[in-house]
Amino acid sequence: MSAGRLSLNQWTTRSWSVAEAVDGCARHGVEAVGLWREHVAGHGLAATARLVRDAGVRVSSLCRGGFLTGGTWLDDNRAAIDEAAELGAACLVLVVGGLPGVAPGEPPAPGFSRDLAGARARVADALDVLAPYAGERGVRLALEALHPIYCADRAVVSTLKQALDLAERHPSEQVGVVVDTFHQWWDPDVFGQIARAGDRIASYQVCDQLSPLPPDVLLARAVPGDGVIDFGPLTAAVAAAGYAGDVEVEVFNADVWAADPDEVLATVRARYAALVEPHL
Amino acid sequence: MSAGRLSLNQWTTRSWSVAEAVDGCARHGVEAVGLWREHVAGHGLAATARLVRDAGVRVSSLCRGGFLTGGTWLDDNRAAIDEAAELGAACLVLVVGGLPGVAPGEPPAPGFSRDLAGARARVADALDVLAPYAGERGVRLALEALHPIYCADRAVVSTLKQALDLAERHPSEQVGVVVDTFHQWWDPDVFGQIARAGDRIASYQVCDQLSPLPPDVLLARAVPGDGVIDFGPLTAAVAAAGYAGDVEVEVFNADVWAADPDEVLATVRARYAALVEPHL
Repeated sequence: MSAGRLSLNQWTTRSWSVAEAVDGCARHGVEAVGLWREHVAGHGLAATARLVRDAGVRVSSLCRGGFLTGGTWLDDNRAAIDEAAELGAACLVLVVGGLPGVAPGEPPAPGFSRDLAGARARVADALDVLAPYAGERGVRLALEALHPIYCADRAVVSTLKQALDLAERHPSEQVGVVVDTFHQWWDPDVFGQIARAGDRIASYQVCDQLSPLPPDVLLARAVPGDGVIDFGPLTAAVAAAGYAGDVEVEVFNADVWAADPDEVLATVRARYAALVEPHL
Repeated sequence: MSAGRLSLNQWTTRSWSVAEAVDGCARHGVEAVGLWREHVAGHGLAATARLVRDAGVRVSSLCRGGFLTGGTWLDDNRAAIDEAAELGAACLVLVVGGLPGVAPGEPPAPGFSRDLAGARARVADALDVLAPYAGERGVRLALEALHPIYCADRAVVSTLKQALDLAERHPSEQVGVVVDTFHQWWDPDVFGQIARAGDRIASYQVCDQLSPLPPDVLLARAVPGDGVIDFGPLTAAVAAAGYAGDVEVEVFNADVWAADPDEVLATVRARYAALVEPHL
């Protein structure tokens, strides 16, 4: 039986290769997959495109382009757009990058910048270059506002409002936004911004937040139902905004990664059916 | 020589008792101190009030009341207000609490609530009760928006805008807000909200954010200059809004706590003079 609009972001079943993830989706009735560029590169771009086409699996997103605030970003992002085009991905997720000179997991580089407003302006400038390039290739960029705890090292775009302010400077088919429960559930303004987003919603990602937080806050995510987030109101708001695309489950969590991927996917499917799908 | 408007939040020099902190302030020319209720209780409330009065030290804040979203909060918050009155504290900081049944550092209790909107409404209801009580005793409540990473277990008030929306339902002398660099630096709306706040700013707390984050994200704070925050624009905005009170340095950081408190206070004073004071 089909899992409807559920999509497996392959990072959730981290130990699976691209081929194993696509096979797992087929066995579990999951019709869409979110792919990561490094995994795609490992399997081969053309081979991955063939694999998903032959399996009849939709590519709900390619993760990820971005990191636009540092020195060199153009070539890598053009390549990511080209890859998304070849895979027929519904969107290319952009994680925009943190302060210049501040990389994830590393001490700030000598001479790093504390100029947050400047870093945010760089993102806008980079989008001016990338959006038309994406448009020419039929690829939709999906700006992802990350949780504010990642502002310094991963994404200076911290709220859905910010993402929409940036996206709306471009045609909707070129630049959309990601609504992500983990990153945005706390935001007092999130329901208003989801309504505002309308057809700008390029991707809806569902993921819970653990409490208490684990030692690595990057891994504070959980399968829906295992944390503190109420998926009903957020999902209903996304549906009311008109989003009709796939719903990706993307979980960064050490225990989930250590578990049997087949069991993980079965749990994901059950939780999606119980907590998310009724509100779509 | 006086350190001007610098205030030592006593948690920064955690190993010091109330008496040691007040003595340390005197020796370092720091004219104000932010006190914590449990330390005050240890020294005795009346004795602490005498101690700061005799030393000529201003009490820039008493930390903390709040945790208004769970079952019982009234008696403890009335007591906190009474204590703030006796100490002559410039404000009583309120950390409003997380989701009902979700306590800091503990697994959610059975039957805990995921109703974030409901928890936020409880805060508003509680303030309706506490604000007049504080007003009668000449105490100003200071609503503190905590970083969104603490939304589940410590404070469902996550942005300065939210804090102001709540505060503005009451007279300014009864309910103000805390501007805190650690909690709010990432917020794209923070400068607009600081300007809006005007005389609602009851406390300005400066604290840096580490990158990368340490294993306990509660301790991701640092002495100004040791992290990624640009104190100039935020401080200038607070000054432009008309804030003329003390500037508290409150640092939760395991390395700082392990260091010699006198060295910590000397560093705090130097950093304040270099990074904060020029923008006031």
